[in-house]
Amino acid sequence: MADPLFERAAIVGAGLIGASLARALRKAGAVKSLIAYDKDPAAAARAKEIGVVDEAAKDFAAAAANADLIVIAAPVGAIDALCRDVNDHARDGALVIDVGSVKGAVAEAAAQLRADIAFVPCHPVAGTEQSGPDAGFAELFDDRWCIITPLDRQDDAYKAAVDKARTLWERVGAHVEFMDPAHHDLALAVTSHLPHLIAFTLVGAADDVESVAQAEVVKYSAGGFRDFTRIAASDPVMWRDVFLKNREAVLEVLGRFSEELAVMQRAIRWGDGEALEKAFTRGRSLRRAIVEAGQETAKPNFGRDKKGH
Amino acid sequence: MADPLFERAAIVGAGLIGASLARALRKAGAVKSLIAYDKDPAAAARAKEIGVVDEAAKDFAAAAANADLIVIAAPVGAIDALCRDVNDHARDGALVIDVGSVKGAVAEAAAQLRADIAFVPCHPVAGTEQSGPDAGFAELFDDRWCIITPLDRQDDAYKAAVDKARTLWERVGAHVEFMDPAHHDLALAVTSHLPHLIAFTLVGAADDVESVAQAEVVKYSAGGFRDFTRIAASDPVMWRDVFLKNREAVLEVLGRFSEELAVMQRAIRWGDGEALEKAFTRGRSLRRAIVEAGQETAKPNFGRDKKGH
Repeated sequence: MADPLFERAAIVGAGLIGASLARALRKAGAVKSLIAYDKDPAAAARAKEIGVVDEAAKDFAAAAANADLIVIAAPVGAIDALCRDVNDHARDGALVIDVGSVKGAVAEAAAQLRADIAFVPCHPVAGTEQSGPDAGFAELFDDRWCIITPLDRQDDAYKAAVDKARTLWERVGAHVEFMDPAHHDLALAVTSHLPHLIAFTLVGAADDVESVAQAEVVKYSAGGFRDFTRIAASDPVMWRDVFLKNREAVLEVLGRFSEELAVMQRAIRWGDGEALEKAFTRGRSLRRAIVEAGQETAKPNFGRDKKGH
Repeated sequence: MADPLFERAAIVGAGLIGASLARALRKAGAVKSLIAYDKDPAAAARAKEIGVVDEAAKDFAAAAANADLIVIAAPVGAIDALCRDVNDHARDGALVIDVGSVKGAVAEAAAQLRADIAFVPCHPVAGTEQSGPDAGFAELFDDRWCIITPLDRQDDAYKAAVDKARTLWERVGAHVEFMDPAHHDLALAVTSHLPHLIAFTLVGAADDVESVAQAEVVKYSAGGFRDFTRIAASDPVMWRDVFLKNREAVLEVLGRFSEELAVMQRAIRWGDGEALEKAFTRGRSLRRAIVEAGQETAKPNFGRDKKGH
């Protein structure tokens, strides 16, 4: 076991990601003690009860006192208020990271921070459709990518903090990539935000076809629909905030998607089988690349069916 | 082991579904012998080589000779030509079933059949993203629904044939539901055809955002995108035919989806967090219902990640 990186980590937001990172940091021996704060006191208490952290804090100030690492793991809509809390309560020289799915808005919020605080915006591209402290597990970040979008600061203290954040993520099994916030927000709009929007929308649209009962949607969901329901079961508040905070990039990629969908619609209307077959052929190579990169299982149906081979 | 239902089954189309049904029928002791025909001779030869069937036929006539069951498991675009083959070569009184994902077009094609042939249109709502005889496995239909859309025939011989088809599907583990073809085509447009169209389109659109490299799409696909690539890796020819043969129903549900998507787009543009959160809340209950119905795993991330709990 390597040496601890931090004496005391404050986990702000005891949800899936906060609880997973707490477990992972402890498992890696990267922190000596852990304290959780959540605006829902029951979540922090639960995190303590199941051993995710050592203590539950009654407020942000109690969590931040003496913490040399603060992890902000709350919906990204709370980032401005939490940066004010950091300014008011973080100890001198604390390393602060967040785990939000949007990074441009986080960089803007961080501009108000005290100069002694090293804030390193991070986005571990990992998760499940589940929420809350009980959903967390230490292996969530294994072989996943964590994107760091450093602030525009050139001082040595900040560079050292970025290095330390990188080491933190590597200790919990992630691969680290650096990126500017605008590119992050566009790339993730493509690979995460648009897919979630589409899944939420498809699930809603299925509810609206009056002549097809929900019981039928459930029964015949193995035809493809069930795949979409996984990410459509994700935390509604977290995702609301993602779309509010990454509006421009999401609208941009949504525009591309809608154009492509209109092309498909026309091909169906006009019976253009050649165009359809050509468009449908692109999926296989991309999936193969994702499997080869270790980001997906090669098993049919994700290996989820009880008796699949 | 129950008694065999058939002496000799001809499997026309040695792909995922044909090979799976052949394996399942044999495992259930429902047939005494199996012969495969595929317009690609290599597929039929492969099915024989790996023990899916006893014999590979050189043409449709050789497969159909002496078969009391003919299973049409080819892309639905071939249904007219295959009904002509059935007329020319099926033995007197043969039971013929298909497994196509569209049923209105199949009923129309069946209108040309000889009166002595009992054609029972079937759609087992099961599959994986893989193709070909090697992808087949006997358990594919376990706990899945098979929809039968009987032709408009009231004679006793036909009713007995429908009963026999029902027994066949139950013997391989499926639950059977009866439906009229138009309702089938609408219900499956919702639960299968639209999801596939959306997945194919999203994968194509991701390719088209020039400033985001495909390598990035691959790396960060765990953010949600990878879920869509499973069904977008499905057989392009099979799916081309589905959209050509179920045009009206697909365009209808696609219109609903596009409207819903426009509503979401406006909510994002105007920063309407309340509307987004409300829309996003619908996904969880539907997923729970699908899990409870045994059509989906309850494990996070489909249980697919190496070290998830």
